[in-house]
Amino acid sequence: MGTAEDVTYSRVWPHPEIVEDLAKLRQNAPLTHCITNIVVTNFTANVLLATGASPAMVVTIEEVADFVGIAQALLINVGTITGHDAEVMLKAAATAHETNTPWVLDPVAAGAIEFRTKVVADLIRYRPSVIRGNASEILAVAGSVGGAKGVDSTAASIAALPAARQLAESTGAVVAISGETDYITDGKVVTSVPGGHEILTKVTGTGCTLGALIAAFLPVTESPLRAATAASAIFAAAGERAAKEAHGTGSFAVAFLDQLSLIGV
Amino acid sequence: MGTAEDVTYSRVWPHPEIVEDLAKLRQNAPLTHCITNIVVTNFTANVLLATGASPAMVVTIEEVADFVGIAQALLINVGTITGHDAEVMLKAAATAHETNTPWVLDPVAAGAIEFRTKVVADLIRYRPSVIRGNASEILAVAGSVGGAKGVDSTAASIAALPAARQLAESTGAVVAISGETDYITDGKVVTSVPGGHEILTKVTGTGCTLGALIAAFLPVTESPLRAATAASAIFAAAGERAAKEAHGTGSFAVAFLDQLSLIGV
Amino acid sequence: MGTAEDVTYSRVWPHPEIVEDLAKLRQNAPLTHCITNIVVTNFTANVLLATGASPAMVVTIEEVADFVGIAQALLINVGTITGHDAEVMLKAAATAHETNTPWVLDPVAAGAIEFRTKVVADLIRYRPSVIRGNASEILAVAGSVGGAKGVDSTAASIAALPAARQLAESTGAVVAISGETDYITDGKVVTSVPGGHEILTKVTGTGCTLGALIAAFLPVTESPLRAATAASAIFAAAGERAAKEAHGTGSFAVAFLDQLSLIGV
Repeated sequence: MGTAEDVTYSRVWPHPEIVEDLAKLRQNAPLTHCITNIVVTNFTANVLLATGASPAMVVTIEEVADFVGIAQALLINVGTITGHDAEVMLKAAATAHETNTPWVLDPVAAGAIEFRTKVVADLIRYRPSVIRGNASEILAVAGSVGGAKGVDSTAASIAALPAARQLAESTGAVVAISGETDYITDGKVVTSVPGGHEILTKVTGTGCTLGALIAAFLPVTESPLRAATAASAIFAAAGERAAKEAHGTGSFAVAFLDQLSLIGV
Repeated sequence: MGTAEDVTYSRVWPHPEIVEDLAKLRQNAPLTHCITNIVVTNFTANVLLATGASPAMVVTIEEVADFVGIAQALLINVGTITGHDAEVMLKAAATAHETNTPWVLDPVAAGAIEFRTKVVADLIRYRPSVIRGNASEILAVAGSVGGAKGVDSTAASIAALPAARQLAESTGAVVAISGETDYITDGKVVTSVPGGHEILTKVTGTGCTLGALIAAFLPVTESPLRAATAASAIFAAAGERAAKEAHGTGSFAVAFLDQLSLIGV
Repeated sequence: MGTAEDVTYSRVWPHPEIVEDLAKLRQNAPLTHCITNIVVTNFTANVLLATGASPAMVVTIEEVADFVGIAQALLINVGTITGHDAEVMLKAAATAHETNTPWVLDPVAAGAIEFRTKVVADLIRYRPSVIRGNASEILAVAGSVGGAKGVDSTAASIAALPAARQLAESTGAVVAISGETDYITDGKVVTSVPGGHEILTKVTGTGCTLGALIAAFLPVTESPLRAATAASAIFAAAGERAAKEAHGTGSFAVAFLDQLSLIGV
């Protein structure tokens, strides 16, 4: 079990580093190639546009390598993976590795289903910059026991911190654990991002879109640790603000996009 | 033609049975496996989360049988079926039948297109707990003449009631006909759920997401008839409340999710 | 480079022609078959429903020819094309050509990726009624140099007008260039539609859904030029009105649907 002593520093909006990184994101509008699940494509594109990035979804074997070459960052999310998708994702990851395109892996429900657990392991060989998941997914990917229920986390995020550090060390990726508090580690330093709001778990794809926003930050920040921290802190702040405006889960999702487009403006 | 005399009883929110069933749904948050069309994936997940269930979409042949084994309920909606989807759906239905996982079949546009009409007939052999559709779809599935136009109903819901009863008797499924008034029958008893609002037809996927919510209720209610009745009555009440808040179709969809998350809380 | 002198006339809501065409759309609710990208399926269906058309998405090789025969109009948008999609689109376009079903081609990111550029060229042989894109896409399709960045335009819309006229003459299609001002031409006449709002570019799929709405107008207007002009003018007016109500990009998208459902009512 991780403890509070493991945390090196904590970041909340408007920490000057995050303000600076967001300004760079908006200035550069990085073209962010998302190969993600069919549930969250629209919301992902709108989250990226609201915050200031340029989303693009290119998802076929004939095009994916060409497009990874054009894009500045890549997200691979296995949420609704098919056999064809697995080929596309492996080709995208291989191309990203060759072309030094930074990329995020979101191992949705890894550990719960055998096929994708294997695909995730294959993808990791192409060295993602960041692996983002909930505690169960990170535990599963790190080879520990997860007991994932669907795509929801059943473990507290801090419980996965030791596994996350180990996974970071063995893969070279920054590992981001999403939960009530987010923990982000490169194996040595641990950032914590408190805050957010429970209602974020009642809107589909808030975790998935966080992965996309981390990807968008990669080409404009000085380290994957800082990219993941900036995206998490912005999500937490926008989530808190949106929760104050919302009447229920529908208006929360709308207010969340509004707040992403307004934060720091 | 059905008549008002065919109706055994009528249910509207907050009937004590429905209040009780909703409380059970929220307590258990049943993991509801949705294999649905590409237009409504996001809205379906958000409707289930708002109401209190746990949605999951697993849609590839390599994973579907494993996941039906984990899930507590299954929805199969043929709205944008492909050849691969047909295989996935048949495997999911067969697995649900083997594992006694309750499931809902939504035969979107059955009768209007030959390929899916045949797939729907094949799926029914795996004994869905509930078949939900508009009057044209139910008439088509029951072998009567439907004349479906796209996915909209062109017949009044009560006109399909005799066919629905016959379909229920021959398949063992509860049949739910959606329309201005919803009719639900196990072949003997007929429940009617009045209400809702016409603007529900101006937001895509309200019928499809009703099918998903019926699936979510199956593992927590004492009968498929009661599951379909609870879901329909909650939809009608949330739709009426949302219509009062909405300015147009966009704000209606948002308010509808809000009301699903607020009803009975 | 195009200039203001190229413009034959300008149209804004509530020009009597557009009011008349919108009334016809709502009276007929044309069944509009959309084969579009996975990011915008839901938003497309809701835009069509809000405005008054009947959307339907049928996307598999086994069904597409049957459904083109039933539909009154067709949209083909290559935004997230796969190899299977390419076959489906070619079959749909061929069937539309045979059955005289009017159709719109949206060549998303043509010029940026080789595979789809080739598919788009093949599709054009089946004589679309309208080709809609941003300036970069139209320039690319017309064989000029586009330099498309993702799916955003990097050229002003008027810069593509000479290429659009040439493309219209060589293909027989009306060509619609989306931008700050939209330009629409059949090769001879040029319509301009000013207005709209910059925030439209911060919501995913506003261009894609404009293509769908043009398709919906085709069966109820006297010419493809008028269909594209009506759809563009209604989008511009709804966008301006929605921008006044919106707090950020999330509430803008909601207000935009509201305004489409309210305009002219």
